[in-house]
Amino acid sequence: MKTVTIDTTDRHEKIANAITNAAAIGRDELLGAIDLGSNSFHLAIARLDHGEVRKVASISEKVQLAAGLDEQNVLSEEAIVRGLECLNRFSQHITEVHPSRLRIVATNALRKAVNAQEFLQRANEILPKPIEIIAGREEARLIYLGVSHSNASTDRRLVIDIGGGSTEFIIGQGFEPIEMESLQMGCVTYTKKFFDDGKITEAAFEAAAKYTQTELLGITKRYKKVGWDNAIGSSGTIKAARSVLAELGLSAETVTLAGLQKLKKHLIKLGSIEKIDFEGVKAHRQAVFPAGVAELIAIMQTLGIDELGYSDGALREGVMYDMLGRLNCEDVRDRSVAALAERYSVDAKQAARVMTRAARLFDAAKDNLGFDDEDADLLRRAANLYEIGLAVGHSNYQRHSAYLLEHSDIAGFSQMGQAMMAQLVLHHRRKLKPDTLQAVEALGGRKLAYLCLILRLAAQSSHSRTTKAAAIDLTVSSPDAWQVVVGAGLHEELIANQLELDIPQFAKWDVALSVVCTK
Amino acid sequence: MKTVTIDTTDRHEKIANAITNAAAIGRDELLGAIDLGSNSFHLAIARLDHGEVRKVASISEKVQLAAGLDEQNVLSEEAIVRGLECLNRFSQHITEVHPSRLRIVATNALRKAVNAQEFLQRANEILPKPIEIIAGREEARLIYLGVSHSNASTDRRLVIDIGGGSTEFIIGQGFEPIEMESLQMGCVTYTKKFFDDGKITEAAFEAAAKYTQTELLGITKRYKKVGWDNAIGSSGTIKAARSVLAELGLSAETVTLAGLQKLKKHLIKLGSIEKIDFEGVKAHRQAVFPAGVAELIAIMQTLGIDELGYSDGALREGVMYDMLGRLNCEDVRDRSVAALAERYSVDAKQAARVMTRAARLFDAAKDNLGFDDEDADLLRRAANLYEIGLAVGHSNYQRHSAYLLEHSDIAGFSQMGQAMMAQLVLHHRRKLKPDTLQAVEALGGRKLAYLCLILRLAAQSSHSRTTKAAAIDLTVSSPDAWQVVVGAGLHEELIANQLELDIPQFAKWDVALSVVCTK
Repeated sequence: MKTVTIDTTDRHEKIANAITNAAAIGRDELLGAIDLGSNSFHLAIARLDHGEVRKVASISEKVQLAAGLDEQNVLSEEAIVRGLECLNRFSQHITEVHPSRLRIVATNALRKAVNAQEFLQRANEILPKPIEIIAGREEARLIYLGVSHSNASTDRRLVIDIGGGSTEFIIGQGFEPIEMESLQMGCVTYTKKFFDDGKITEAAFEAAAKYTQTELLGITKRYKKVGWDNAIGSSGTIKAARSVLAELGLSAETVTLAGLQKLKKHLIKLGSIEKIDFEGVKAHRQAVFPAGVAELIAIMQTLGIDELGYSDGALREGVMYDMLGRLNCEDVRDRSVAALAERYSVDAKQAARVMTRAARLFDAAKDNLGFDDEDADLLRRAANLYEIGLAVGHSNYQRHSAYLLEHSDIAGFSQMGQAMMAQLVLHHRRKLKPDTLQAVEALGGRKLAYLCLILRLAAQSSHSRTTKAAAIDLTVSSPDAWQVVVGAGLHEELIANQLELDIPQFAKWDVALSVVCTK
Repeated sequence: MKTVTIDTTDRHEKIANAITNAAAIGRDELLGAIDLGSNSFHLAIARLDHGEVRKVASISEKVQLAAGLDEQNVLSEEAIVRGLECLNRFSQHITEVHPSRLRIVATNALRKAVNAQEFLQRANEILPKPIEIIAGREEARLIYLGVSHSNASTDRRLVIDIGGGSTEFIIGQGFEPIEMESLQMGCVTYTKKFFDDGKITEAAFEAAAKYTQTELLGITKRYKKVGWDNAIGSSGTIKAARSVLAELGLSAETVTLAGLQKLKKHLIKLGSIEKIDFEGVKAHRQAVFPAGVAELIAIMQTLGIDELGYSDGALREGVMYDMLGRLNCEDVRDRSVAALAERYSVDAKQAARVMTRAARLFDAAKDNLGFDDEDADLLRRAANLYEIGLAVGHSNYQRHSAYLLEHSDIAGFSQMGQAMMAQLVLHHRRKLKPDTLQAVEALGGRKLAYLCLILRLAAQSSHSRTTKAAAIDLTVSSPDAWQVVVGAGLHEELIANQLELDIPQFAKWDVALSVVCTK
């Protein structure tokens, strides 16, 4: 099946046909990924073919979100509208993709935008699934996943992905990343910094080179020490540079530093951005092309790279392979959770007790509270990690647990996924407040509040850390009226005490809790 | 030399005489500790005698700070004034103690008070040294230090210290604590909760027992598992209980559970707090005595303790022994810093580079910026730990470093000491802002801002992690005009670039930085 790649909006029909054809083969096997980059938005649809991801259609649009950020990192209304219009067009093409097989990720521009939440809310009305803002290192991980699956090799590889607002550097071997960094530099940033007047000069290239060297100071030594057998680039900037080099007969399959130096001279001779007219530089890339070349040359010089291969697969493909892993029960998030539990020396027995208890309470309440499988995953992971903050400090450790879950680099999670886990652990003890309820509901609706309270019940009733589990059952007659039934016994009585003391807290979150002892 | 212990203000003269006598023997050897407890404030003065701490005078005043906290944890003006008046009287007795040999610590009531800062500022005008608010676990550590030095033994011991607002539980062996907890319970809290109407009833004792059992749920199993050979109590509540038991002939040296049960019956027979009239219960303790007894009985029952020894030394003595360690270059803070660096896998070589560089810059600026030895210690420790946040996440790791330093249980540090380290690491990279300068100066004056900038220079010029140190010198002509002189070389040139880019940041903190290359 041929991949259809289209960049202009008037060819949406072709895309639609390709998707319809693919859907006819097997609708359940379609995967979709949307990537909201700082310069362009991309949509890719793929089909699962014997466990492999085969792209059937992809479409890119220049949205230039990053260009709409002002000095205070406020995204302009114009940029928001440009983005939403693009997503509106994309949404036409994902009707055949089941939401559980769709992921929509956003990178640097939305990471930085102080009003990102507004964009996400308005996008929610268009898209069948929320946008996930991912951290720089998660982006790097997914890029490596995309590159390593698209170009199988056992070599140790350095992958460089130049985006609009961030550039990722990953060293990996096989499918495993070894070093990952996401730096605040990209073709949009460099255009603003060095080519803002539209002129292409030697001085601009030199300034970019000097700046790059300084920016890379923090990683150069470490990366060179780890080393690599070969280097691969991905994404638009490097793709365009490669095409132009071929077009000018300066190099063929790869991007060579020597070729780029000649291209640089050529660009300086042109003298201004508006004169750029290469076959390989699409209209929407013209304005950022010289800056991208300048950044690429500077990176290759700083890291001592003479030749750079190219990978067609990158972030979107990584997102799809990551989804495939989740569908196949190889969820990288579980591996990350286990690693965190280990790093912060979580009491594994206690975590197991709380996970078991939480799962039992969850099952009892599931139907009445409208929980689904993703909620079960969220609760299980939070129950595993609710005590990690103890490694920081004992007093108010729930706050430390929440801080670590919200701010750590946790492979496989979006920022929102981490924020939800953080809310769960934050509210498992101490006073609840009406205003924190607002924050929780804004993040994940009433359901997230219920999940918080389920974990709270599980943790409070496991406080004694005894191996013998006390008999506790939950009955949810209506969503906001919960009854806990505690069995007979001395230990059970203590738990009942504890839960009774907690009734006023539940009330503050509008849940009427009652505790009954069967003695 | 006999210890003079006095509880009423009209006997200040005796105290003053004792101190004058001690000072005559050796003024340089006097140590002072003030402890601002939730119920009482205490002052102790001691003399160093062959490396041992010998108390020469102590005085206690009932200030009842905790009783002045309202529902929102706001300390009332009356309570503040009570506290300041007491400190004013104390201040008369510490004129002979050198400030470097004086420590003033505050515990639970000021930990909780939302307007603690106001109290600290007003106290600063009275005292020769700032008050340090210490965390619960630091309080526990110091109590154990005091108990273990006052009662030498190789047994494994459980120490229980019932305060006004918090109770500390420590298991330790020799001078080393093994388990430490500080729980939010104390004789003032219990009075409010169970004896607020002034009546002494069986029901009040029972409610206190039930509550205690629930509160101790989180530690009971763990503590019993670690185990102890004997249990020791300290501080006013337990001291008073012991005196009364002896007075009533219910037990002699120790506090037995059987004796306490009889005391409880006796108290219930009295029926009301105002009827309490024991020799061993000073006037200021009368109101909180039944609650203290109720708490003590409940703790002994829950943990299975039949007999409790008594230690005269506790927090104040611990503070003195801790000071002694600092004076003898066995500063527990350095051990804590090393442990943190280890736990968060700090790159030790890089930390060493930055420490060396920071020390060099510090020495060059010391005279003009008015730095002293404590500043050098602060800078050194912050330089050792500035990268700990990397273990959490790479993006904005300086924030994670600051969070960990501010919120971790770090033995030997006050909350303010930790807050100052946190400010240093927080500002070592990224943008500086005028309003963060305000926060820094409010915490530690202009000098703290200078220390932040010294660490910033050291970190920024060590960014490349190369072993060969670049030649960098600092000249501070006037406090707010700094010149960095960078030697010749390729690496030096990169550092000069980096520092030049930082000039606008220094300007925001009102320091005119200039960078000169000697090439």
